[in-house]
Amino acid sequence: MEARTGATVKDGPTVPDLLARGRTLCTPPLRAAVTRLAAPMDTVAAYHFGWIDRDGNPVAGDGGKAVRPALALLSAEAVGAPAAAGVPGGVAVELVHNFSLLHDDLMDGDETRRHRATAWTVFGPAQAILVGDALATLGTEVLLDAAVTGDATAADAARAVRLITTSTRKLIDGQALDVSFEQRDVVTVEECLEMEGGKTGALLAASAAIGAVLAGADDRVSDALQRYGYHLGLAFQAVDDLLGIWGATEVTGKPHWSDLQSRKKSLPVCAALAEGGAASRKLAAQLADPHGRGVESEEVLAARAALIEEAGGRDWTQEEARRQYQTALAALDEVPMADAVREHFVALAEFVVVRER
Amino acid sequence: MEARTGATVKDGPTVPDLLARGRTLCTPPLRAAVTRLAAPMDTVAAYHFGWIDRDGNPVAGDGGKAVRPALALLSAEAVGAPAAAGVPGGVAVELVHNFSLLHDDLMDGDETRRHRATAWTVFGPAQAILVGDALATLGTEVLLDAAVTGDATAADAARAVRLITTSTRKLIDGQALDVSFEQRDVVTVEECLEMEGGKTGALLAASAAIGAVLAGADDRVSDALQRYGYHLGLAFQAVDDLLGIWGATEVTGKPHWSDLQSRKKSLPVCAALAEGGAASRKLAAQLADPHGRGVESEEVLAARAALIEEAGGRDWTQEEARRQYQTALAALDEVPMADAVREHFVALAEFVVVRER
Repeated sequence: MEARTGATVKDGPTVPDLLARGRTLCTPPLRAAVTRLAAPMDTVAAYHFGWIDRDGNPVAGDGGKAVRPALALLSAEAVGAPAAAGVPGGVAVELVHNFSLLHDDLMDGDETRRHRATAWTVFGPAQAILVGDALATLGTEVLLDAAVTGDATAADAARAVRLITTSTRKLIDGQALDVSFEQRDVVTVEECLEMEGGKTGALLAASAAIGAVLAGADDRVSDALQRYGYHLGLAFQAVDDLLGIWGATEVTGKPHWSDLQSRKKSLPVCAALAEGGAASRKLAAQLADPHGRGVESEEVLAARAALIEEAGGRDWTQEEARRQYQTALAALDEVPMADAVREHFVALAEFVVVRER
Repeated sequence: MEARTGATVKDGPTVPDLLARGRTLCTPPLRAAVTRLAAPMDTVAAYHFGWIDRDGNPVAGDGGKAVRPALALLSAEAVGAPAAAGVPGGVAVELVHNFSLLHDDLMDGDETRRHRATAWTVFGPAQAILVGDALATLGTEVLLDAAVTGDATAADAARAVRLITTSTRKLIDGQALDVSFEQRDVVTVEECLEMEGGKTGALLAASAAIGAVLAGADDRVSDALQRYGYHLGLAFQAVDDLLGIWGATEVTGKPHWSDLQSRKKSLPVCAALAEGGAASRKLAAQLADPHGRGVESEEVLAARAALIEEAGGRDWTQEEARRQYQTALAALDEVPMADAVREHFVALAEFVVVRER
């Protein structure tokens, strides 16, 4: 996304530092939590997190960007607490995020994630289900433990449990919608936004507030930080949907049209179908035709991308990403916090939204 | 099981009354909780609970015995609170129980439950995974709601969340062990008890204490009630394992040897294998032979049942059921409570353990 706001925080060392801090502080307690799992679930989880290979050998995997823990720590700082106060929250959101990845990969039949074989393909569907279940439960345990160790008051830990539980259910609702879309030819823009708000927005909302909640933030602050995270999630998803069609591959530098091959009802497609003009109707007719599904040539897909663009789907989604990003930053403005912390939130938002492939 | 204790509570109208009370008080809030799920998960859950058929028509299904809600209400009474104080607990344990059934049926490939097609066979694996995930999450929400509505203090609701979360993870550990047993020829008696304690004991332990916890019970009372439920679960499971081999079918009145056909490592089998004599060694050799697995004749299975009995597996398991049952009642003795409530706990224990098929 090319849109920038008036808050001109440049990409600099701060974002990598914030991400590194999240990983440094949250990975040890995350690994400690995972070792509580009965064998062989601990091994399956360690493989999924990228800590070991399929033979059990330690690997120096990156384990993903870990944006969620970084947000959780920052949210503790938003209310004047040390970043460490957000650690149980960062661990909990990472556990819930990975619960959803384990189950979603199985449900969607995805065989790779971050260039590695998904857990269900290596250890079987039963282990993917079990370990997912266990990680979700561990997420709640880690928050309750914070009250036992004195890292949070009992009341604040309970509020954090409420936050993670509510967002977990929205996450499940979003995945249920996504699964149901596969059976349908047309999905409205509103339905698509609802699905993406559940799948991506809900847990980013929890991530951006859970450290603050653990540190005693009031509901007004928590709500505003959640809105920042939620709309950031929707902005991220809009960009992701654009890249899913027009993003360039690392090898060729050309668009790969991957979401068009799977006929994904992403935002640009839903917006183009809603427009109703000639290109929109032609697109609808193509998508209603089961013939060729999954085996369409690059020429056919390129022509379809052009139709989506002609029907305004690309422009609308770019605008939507901009709107969601600005709504996220506006929510942030409602929360009084130190300038440095605010700049970090803005920098993370920009990092999440501005990507090229 | 024929064993009775000195506490001679006769099967009478009290047990059906206790079960009916649990259903009457807990089913409306359970149904209300399920309606919070996004479509089509609400439908899948309603089908699974036996409230509708696969076409969505209401059915007057029994929905199971609902022992867990009955125990939850009774546990509130154990600390002098009204039974209604245990309702959020009864709803939560029923939600978690059904989360585990949905996922276990899928993992185990079971196509029927209570003479109905399992949810995953009707709605597909993805829905069974999603709805299971959602029910587990709802279980926590229902307990947190109790603090919002004033049905429990925030501190007691948080303790109830801790109880259900811990037992959910033990439940998952037990299922993970059960799944791993399928790949093995020999399972020790201790491993089998650990598995059954997780799969059956943990949630009955939570059920027998959660109403008391919501009503403010101290840890000593909660621990004793949990031990009652845990050992009751192990007694139930020992009887279930005996019936899985020697239980008579409703139609023929003859043993059906069903667990022998699937070569399940149930308690009588594990105990017989541990004995080490001639019959035990012959049994081990039979089970190590992959030939005939799943297609053995009734004569072969009857001979195997005789071997298990000769190696002491049947007697040991009957004794174990008696020991667990008495351990459960001994735990109950540690808790001061009204005589009528204690008699109800004993009557429910007898109901759970004394079955014929």
